Amino acid sequence: MTDFRLTALAASLPSTVPFVGPEAQERQLGKPFLARLGANESNFGPSPRALEAMAATDVWNYGDPESFELRGALAAHLNVSPTNIIIGEGIDGLLGYLVRLFVETGDTVVTSDGAYPTFNYHVAGYGGVLHKVPYANDQENPSALFAKARETGAKLVYLANPDNPMGTWHSGETLVRALDDLPAGCILVLDEAYIECASDGTAPDIAPDDPRVIRMRTFSGAYGLAGARVGYAVGAPDLIDAFHKVRNHFGMNRAAQAGALAALADQEYLEQVRGHVVAARDRIAEIALENGLTPLPSATNFVAIDCGRDGAFAKAILDGLIARGVFVRMPFVAPQNRCIRISCGTEADLDILAAVLPDAVRDAQKG
Amino acid sequence: MTDFRLTALAASLPSTVPFVGPEAQERQLGKPFLARLGANESNFGPSPRALEAMAATDVWNYGDPESFELRGALAAHLNVSPTNIIIGEGIDGLLGYLVRLFVETGDTVVTSDGAYPTFNYHVAGYGGVLHKVPYANDQENPSALFAKARETGAKLVYLANPDNPMGTWHSGETLVRALDDLPAGCILVLDEAYIECASDGTAPDIAPDDPRVIRMRTFSGAYGLAGARVGYAVGAPDLIDAFHKVRNHFGMNRAAQAGALAALADQEYLEQVRGHVVAARDRIAEIALENGLTPLPSATNFVAIDCGRDGAFAKAILDGLIARGVFVRMPFVAPQNRCIRISCGTEADLDILAAVLPDAVRDAQKG
Repeated sequence: MTDFRLTALAASLPSTVPFVGPEAQERQLGKPFLARLGANESNFGPSPRALEAMAATDVWNYGDPESFELRGALAAHLNVSPTNIIIGEGIDGLLGYLVRLFVETGDTVVTSDGAYPTFNYHVAGYGGVLHKVPYANDQENPSALFAKARETGAKLVYLANPDNPMGTWHSGETLVRALDDLPAGCILVLDEAYIECASDGTAPDIAPDDPRVIRMRTFSGAYGLAGARVGYAVGAPDLIDAFHKVRNHFGMNRAAQAGALAALADQEYLEQVRGHVVAARDRIAEIALENGLTPLPSATNFVAIDCGRDGAFAKAILDGLIARGVFVRMPFVAPQNRCIRISCGTEADLDILAAVLPDAVRDAQKG
Repeated sequence: MTDFRLTALAASLPSTVPFVGPEAQERQLGKPFLARLGANESNFGPSPRALEAMAATDVWNYGDPESFELRGALAAHLNVSPTNIIIGEGIDGLLGYLVRLFVETGDTVVTSDGAYPTFNYHVAGYGGVLHKVPYANDQENPSALFAKARETGAKLVYLANPDNPMGTWHSGETLVRALDDLPAGCILVLDEAYIECASDGTAPDIAPDDPRVIRMRTFSGAYGLAGARVGYAVGAPDLIDAFHKVRNHFGMNRAAQAGALAALADQEYLEQVRGHVVAARDRIAEIALENGLTPLPSATNFVAIDCGRDGAFAKAILDGLIARGVFVRMPFVAPQNRCIRISCGTEADLDILAAVLPDAVRDAQKG
């Protein structure tokens, strides 16, 4: 093995992956999944207009490095200025840039124990020290997060609302009140990846120029464009401007820019998807109950199902589903890992889930 | 202005952009370009099979984070192992990861004065100290680069073959010989973005496991997929493996993965593009000569044209072309900036160039 002159930090990092992809699991299983319900993708697909726009793109051209049209359309949609918006390669990419801007070796960051692992991956990747607070009743706990941020002098505190992987949420008003306890100089990274699936009032009413908060949103969820990799962040112009220091300016896929623009314009389609999501959540809950399992309330495009015992039992059910061709995931950390997490799917997807879950539960009970 | 707690390095960086995109120029001009000949995109477009594959992609699914199929196909195509290959969001993205792995504040890196600015952007972005050596006869100078690397203890040395922005090249044999002078522990970052446009023998014969070299290639050039953002690096497995420490695992656009796979499979189409590129280079050279300008030899999909005076004169011609609706770029640094750089285009594109270049030259001469 050659002794490459990696930085000390890079040398210390594992060659890891926050998640194993379903394709890798399919290769291991030797067959494709029958239903893809594990990555919170939108099984209802994107707006047909988005597909048309992508197909009509001259993909031999680089994308506009300023994502000018998409930023403008988002600004109009959100009633903010384009200077409040940065477009990036999914929320994952934007989280990476944000962490790079703020975190160097020894800097402290706060998140919940069991929250989004890719954020943690970025923090570790820049040498940050991650402090975690427990979930409270399967919800992220803003008071505890902000208290821990104060205690540790954190530069960033991560909170997803609605939450992934539990699907729970706080009202926007609750979050606005909680912000009073955010220590000065600490930025709240508010991951709103699932906000389109939540009820009105879930997104907190925060001024776009408020320097305390940066919101992260995506076209990967309800807009159905996970494979296109388009996320955006909304924040104070000075903060947004800092992304230009480090981002991959020509990193945006041109077709993805066009697809996101068309998807945003088709709010009627999004409304249909919202309806499908609500129906699918109800169906998943029903299937869970029929199998003696307890669905958690959800404001997202997935449902966490409490399997009623420990993580090993939930994992056994999950393994049973995967072996039967249903791709699902589960929380990583106790006590949330007593649950499995099922993404909303089409009726056909959920028919498959309904068909195989009884056997998966039975096998797990035999254990 | 809020005093954000950026890292000291981030605070010191400008909010810059390595290149202004043609779309921004079009917005300034208030009209679209008539011919897009500035970004070395492939105006001949991608293989129709690539377009079909992208359109057939379930874009609601995340891409395979392992890019398993594409890596496998590239490995077979290049006669290397998949463990020699990492796929990334264009060469730009891969250069960013590479620099992040190796460069921290104060580390030295070597490149040519006037070579690819995005590499320099990444080096600055991680606090590296960049040493530059001059071009020699409009070619990058391997001996001077490697001598400077030795002198400065550089961790990385960048060399593009064929070169951008000059279009010149070294034979593969010349580079293999030059490698004897690469200091131990310094990695040659060999940017082969334009290799598909070069003659056989331009790519050096270097064992894929050779720890001294990492090669960067792309689907943005001859494959016609600039907007899709698919690049790859070939190197020793230990070095390739290090990318997994820091990369955005789910950063690849799923349609782009499928498009690149289909484009790679259509070598017949690539061969046609190569023919178009050679013809376009000849035509650009002819147009240059007709206007009293001197084309440089090129092994790329563009031609650098020596305008015969200083940078201001070349800039005046460039401005004249842009004002007349022809997007072109030029080298940033003297003496290369006596040239303008014209990407290969279709016959229709080059008809437009031929029509407007005389006026642009005449206006510049009036100066």
